[in-house]
Amino acid sequence: MTTQGNNLDRWYNHYADRTAGLSASEVRALFAVASRPEVVSLAGGMPFVSALPRELVSGAMDRVMRDDGPRALQYGSGQGVPALREHILEVMALEGIRGSVDDVVVTTGSQHALELITKLFINPGDVVLAEGPSYVTALTVFKSFQAQVEHVAMDEHGLVPQALREHIVRLKADGKTIKFLYTVPTFSNPAGVTLTWERRLEILEIARSNDILVLEDNPYGLLYFDGPAPHAMRSVEEDGVVYLGTFSKTLAPGFRLGWALAPHAIREKLILANEAAVLSPSSFTQLIVSEYLSSSDWQGQIGVFRGIYRERRNAMLAALTDYLPDLRWTIPNGGFYVWVTLPPHVDAKSMLPRAVKELVAYTPGTAFYADGNGRNNMRLSFCYPTPEFIREGIRRLSTVINGELELLNTFSQTGPLDTTHIHQGTSSPAATLG
Amino acid sequence: MTTQGNNLDRWYNHYADRTAGLSASEVRALFAVASRPEVVSLAGGMPFVSALPRELVSGAMDRVMRDDGPRALQYGSGQGVPALREHILEVMALEGIRGSVDDVVVTTGSQHALELITKLFINPGDVVLAEGPSYVTALTVFKSFQAQVEHVAMDEHGLVPQALREHIVRLKADGKTIKFLYTVPTFSNPAGVTLTWERRLEILEIARSNDILVLEDNPYGLLYFDGPAPHAMRSVEEDGVVYLGTFSKTLAPGFRLGWALAPHAIREKLILANEAAVLSPSSFTQLIVSEYLSSSDWQGQIGVFRGIYRERRNAMLAALTDYLPDLRWTIPNGGFYVWVTLPPHVDAKSMLPRAVKELVAYTPGTAFYADGNGRNNMRLSFCYPTPEFIREGIRRLSTVINGELELLNTFSQTGPLDTTHIHQGTSSPAATLG
Repeated sequence: MTTQGNNLDRWYNHYADRTAGLSASEVRALFAVASRPEVVSLAGGMPFVSALPRELVSGAMDRVMRDDGPRALQYGSGQGVPALREHILEVMALEGIRGSVDDVVVTTGSQHALELITKLFINPGDVVLAEGPSYVTALTVFKSFQAQVEHVAMDEHGLVPQALREHIVRLKADGKTIKFLYTVPTFSNPAGVTLTWERRLEILEIARSNDILVLEDNPYGLLYFDGPAPHAMRSVEEDGVVYLGTFSKTLAPGFRLGWALAPHAIREKLILANEAAVLSPSSFTQLIVSEYLSSSDWQGQIGVFRGIYRERRNAMLAALTDYLPDLRWTIPNGGFYVWVTLPPHVDAKSMLPRAVKELVAYTPGTAFYADGNGRNNMRLSFCYPTPEFIREGIRRLSTVINGELELLNTFSQTGPLDTTHIHQGTSSPAATLG
Repeated sequence: MTTQGNNLDRWYNHYADRTAGLSASEVRALFAVASRPEVVSLAGGMPFVSALPRELVSGAMDRVMRDDGPRALQYGSGQGVPALREHILEVMALEGIRGSVDDVVVTTGSQHALELITKLFINPGDVVLAEGPSYVTALTVFKSFQAQVEHVAMDEHGLVPQALREHIVRLKADGKTIKFLYTVPTFSNPAGVTLTWERRLEILEIARSNDILVLEDNPYGLLYFDGPAPHAMRSVEEDGVVYLGTFSKTLAPGFRLGWALAPHAIREKLILANEAAVLSPSSFTQLIVSEYLSSSDWQGQIGVFRGIYRERRNAMLAALTDYLPDLRWTIPNGGFYVWVTLPPHVDAKSMLPRAVKELVAYTPGTAFYADGNGRNNMRLSFCYPTPEFIREGIRRLSTVINGELELLNTFSQTGPLDTTHIHQGTSSPAATLG
């Protein structure tokens, strides 16, 4: 569905040019489907908030209203509550980041930081470099400000530096203005892969020498399963990186609290843009989260989340091996997602209605590309359903995929489908994820 | 302070063109000043949230976490929680508005609705018509999307229809594209005046015949002192009006919850823009406010607020009459603000440091114009300080103003200041507020 309007809309000719880029994501319709209880949804990215003991939140709420009620109910500053920003430094320190409390800007989820940074940097036609595949709602934001999104190839070790280098050369030769590189280097959404430490340094060097800002989005970094991830890119580079963090995955998304850590001059503009957009982030949720971080064993709670998601990741990988041994998929060491590559003739998007009929949902790969790629890919989320439901979901999915392959073999005008190229398990190091 | 950056900023040449319009408001620096306890601040627009019984909020919080915890902590829809949208219809019905729950979009304060609507409609150079004077952070939003703001004269009865008509003719003759008319018709910020019913109809007719959308922003409508205000403009015109409301003044701004009621096609785009910007407004605060509206005598609580603000309005008008009888000011029948006109040679902005030295703060009139007007105006807020502090603040202000007039008379190269044009009390019907 596009949002270009139609002739039933009296205001059809009044919209800004940028609304042409504003369309409903493929994920959106799925949320409606996924909410039906009989469907096993491997589609959404909802964290399993039921694992957060309610009394921890209730206790923090009660103390805030008792001790600091009028401040919680009032407008705050466009930068956010100082005590919360101090806590945010503690959170980021776990991934090697040292910053000043003055350079932290609290936002309405890290999504809003993404929107504001894009508003600050993108003129129509400017290029944003992004992993291919990339986080779907980041692509929506970039397009809503008329950016040209250029995907850079990634493999099981994350963004490929040489591909980045070559892409920049091509774009510069075409006279393009490249504004920033958007990346989710750790347990990426949707690919589930992690950029190696060596590549982080190499990519920072490429960005530096080409005068390209790096927008490092790190919602999942603390949710590792097999030992901590490499330190954040921001840990070695201050001036060239805007770092985005969030409480949505390590605490709860319902508070809508995230943040940006930005170089001074950018941070100043970010505060102004934040004030224009929302006056201030919610004092109420900021004080509650700040109190939670002061009074609870929040690192222990993140450990609880790690254990839950690890078990679910394991369940998904085991079920894929058992039910769909001929496919390729990534093996995430943290985060929420597995990226599956189907045989080249299978269209994950057109297959989705059949999957939903079989009571399983996923997100088609095309959602994560601005350029139509990802046709034979799907993102599977293991964050929300229980291990048993995950296994059942993959079983149902195998029925759908095998039926699809049978259908293709039957009706294919080019004869039986060639499946010799399909390898079990993750892709080889040389292969990209496309 | 502009945000154009400087040569100490490595990213100086990277910002989007629109950041040229993004500057710190004059109100911003004042918030720092106003927070010093010895200063009587008549500058900010902070509602008096201490008048909200904390147990009402705490009770709602506890019930939400007990009965609906996982939903409160989770992501929600980009349109907002259905139960809250039902309550919003009840709130709007008090001002004559009938709408569908499907056409309500919950936003992160009505400020964010303003930002999103502007993002949806404004191409660089498009015209936004706005009252003169107009809400300061609306002007910031418009400029941040490179709109050309054109002020339309208002008097004590609000926007002047004939001035609007003539202005539209001039702009069309210049080939300008007028996208919408932004108006706070009831107890306006900063002027404190209310558009009469007859003028509402006339202005809607002008907008309709010129194909101009009306953006009706109504944060103060329920906070009347001398009987209800005329019904909202949205009550008589559906397709041509986007209506903005908020819980910031009738409940508390700390929740950051407002809404837009928009024609179908615009509402669809608004939801998409909301999703891109923040994914969803906070489920946590939405459910708490929804529970508060279900379980409390919220209309009674608005009555309490009315009583408090009425007393403060009265204190301010009495103090102005007693201490500054030679000035002109508006007489608000609701809301938070009085608009004061100083003698033509007095510059309210350059006088402000002297006022702060005398421990009183106000907002200079120029903050409320995009075109440099309002030099000899000031906005005085009576929402936050007690009646005693308001009286003391006006007393201090009279010292500053009288000192300023003495100074001007002493040093004026054109001889003693002519004060014969100054009338006591509000301006005559024919005069505008400039």
